[in-house]
Amino acid sequence: MSKEVSGSLLLAWQVKGKHCLVIGSGDVALSRINHLIRANAKITVITGGGHIHEDIVKLHEEGVIYNLVKRNYQSRDLKMYEKTSIELDGIEELINPSHYEEIRQVVEHEVFANVCCCIDDYELSERIYYQCKFLRLPVNIADKPPLCDFYFGSMFNQDNLQIMISTNGKSPRLSKLIKDNIARQFEGIDLNKAVENLGLIRSCLRSNIVIDDDLISIDTRMNWIKQLTDYFSLKEWSYFNLTDENCRKIISYFPEFPPKDYQEFEKIISN
Amino acid sequence: MSKEVSGSLLLAWQVKGKHCLVIGSGDVALSRINHLIRANAKITVITGGGHIHEDIVKLHEEGVIYNLVKRNYQSRDLKMYEKTSIELDGIEELINPSHYEEIRQVVEHEVFANVCCCIDDYELSERIYYQCKFLRLPVNIADKPPLCDFYFGSMFNQDNLQIMISTNGKSPRLSKLIKDNIARQFEGIDLNKAVENLGLIRSCLRSNIVIDDDLISIDTRMNWIKQLTDYFSLKEWSYFNLTDENCRKIISYFPEFPPKDYQEFEKIISN
Repeated sequence: MSKEVSGSLLLAWQVKGKHCLVIGSGDVALSRINHLIRANAKITVITGGGHIHEDIVKLHEEGVIYNLVKRNYQSRDLKMYEKTSIELDGIEELINPSHYEEIRQVVEHEVFANVCCCIDDYELSERIYYQCKFLRLPVNIADKPPLCDFYFGSMFNQDNLQIMISTNGKSPRLSKLIKDNIARQFEGIDLNKAVENLGLIRSCLRSNIVIDDDLISIDTRMNWIKQLTDYFSLKEWSYFNLTDENCRKIISYFPEFPPKDYQEFEKIISN
Repeated sequence: MSKEVSGSLLLAWQVKGKHCLVIGSGDVALSRINHLIRANAKITVITGGGHIHEDIVKLHEEGVIYNLVKRNYQSRDLKMYEKTSIELDGIEELINPSHYEEIRQVVEHEVFANVCCCIDDYELSERIYYQCKFLRLPVNIADKPPLCDFYFGSMFNQDNLQIMISTNGKSPRLSKLIKDNIARQFEGIDLNKAVENLGLIRSCLRSNIVIDDDLISIDTRMNWIKQLTDYFSLKEWSYFNLTDENCRKIISYFPEFPPKDYQEFEKIISN
């Protein structure tokens, strides 16, 4: 491996229903908005004074942009939905379950989960970056890698499955080429069904096999589901029609395993 | 597309040299640590009182774990490296360039870029989650999807190229199967070289074509590099040996384009 390699931490951020802010209204802003829509975010756009991309206007008319603010950015925009303040003098030791609801309120309805700035004004961009960091908001300043907590990559989406390709900011376009290659590879396989089937087993396992003593730990459960997944190919996992009921039959073997043979396994779940 | 689809925002987080915290010392903690190592993070591990995974001990001995703290978690751990406080009464409007250096210091050397909690104690996990959110630290509580700002996916790494597969927490193991499929597909192509070549053109473009008027915007530059990338296949991009000098030859065509023919293009850069 080359010494110059500088990797990223590729993560799947959960922004469903959470406020996200986009500053700008050109091509780049539109691309950010599309990413955020796919992740079910509650999107606010501060357009700036110039031309607004027609697709952004359209998305707003369709109701997928929560708030389209047609004016220049103001510093206070970064806290525009904040109203709850938790009075603890910043001392996290004092937090107890009585504060959980208040904190959840802030996380889910008041604070921006992230900020994407896509404007050509470098000085303002830089100021927005430092304001965000002061407020501890994750931020991406378009086309300014050093002023980014995170980069966007190319994404392949097929229902519950998402694949992201990143070149660590070196060549976003190459990411796209690779994405197209991957997409071709999965044509004709119902990946979503495979994901759903395995997800059902996982949640069934989580609710039925409780971590109650030293014998059943998170690791034990995780290793069990790992081994089970390896029993069949992607295609095979997509053929099953699992339900809560036949998942319980599979789980009943835990910590042992159901039959590894495809036909035998199918018999178990259909009986 | 199914209505139940709940996507994530797949992002490449930049944690190089930044503090990241792992709480726990089992298999899951090890997996988080390995992700963080790949991203060049400065890793602190609070092990807890129990057994420490031998690979974690080894990684610490090899010097890739910055700080291995062998004791139970304490609330103040979340701010263990913080010492600079910026006195602005939380008013982001007041931020000006004189504060930039101080804020950078906090971001790069004091605050945790993220927290990964991998312990079996649910009550404590939950408390850590709310403490993190109070302090606005991004956090992942293992095996508790509702208490996660982000999930980990399966990752394929080849030098500067990274691919992440996410099933939105539904089946991490299936992600791994898909990852293995993708890895097989790219065997024998020097993707890294292709990424480096395109990255060089991109940074050359950024430093030579300055955004100085309405005609040359971020969008113009981005569209130019996009179109250029599409000229050749992955394999072809990996064959070039670009340098700063021949990149400037390519850039000299901007906003027009160099020849699209592979042989012609090669001639341009080797002249």
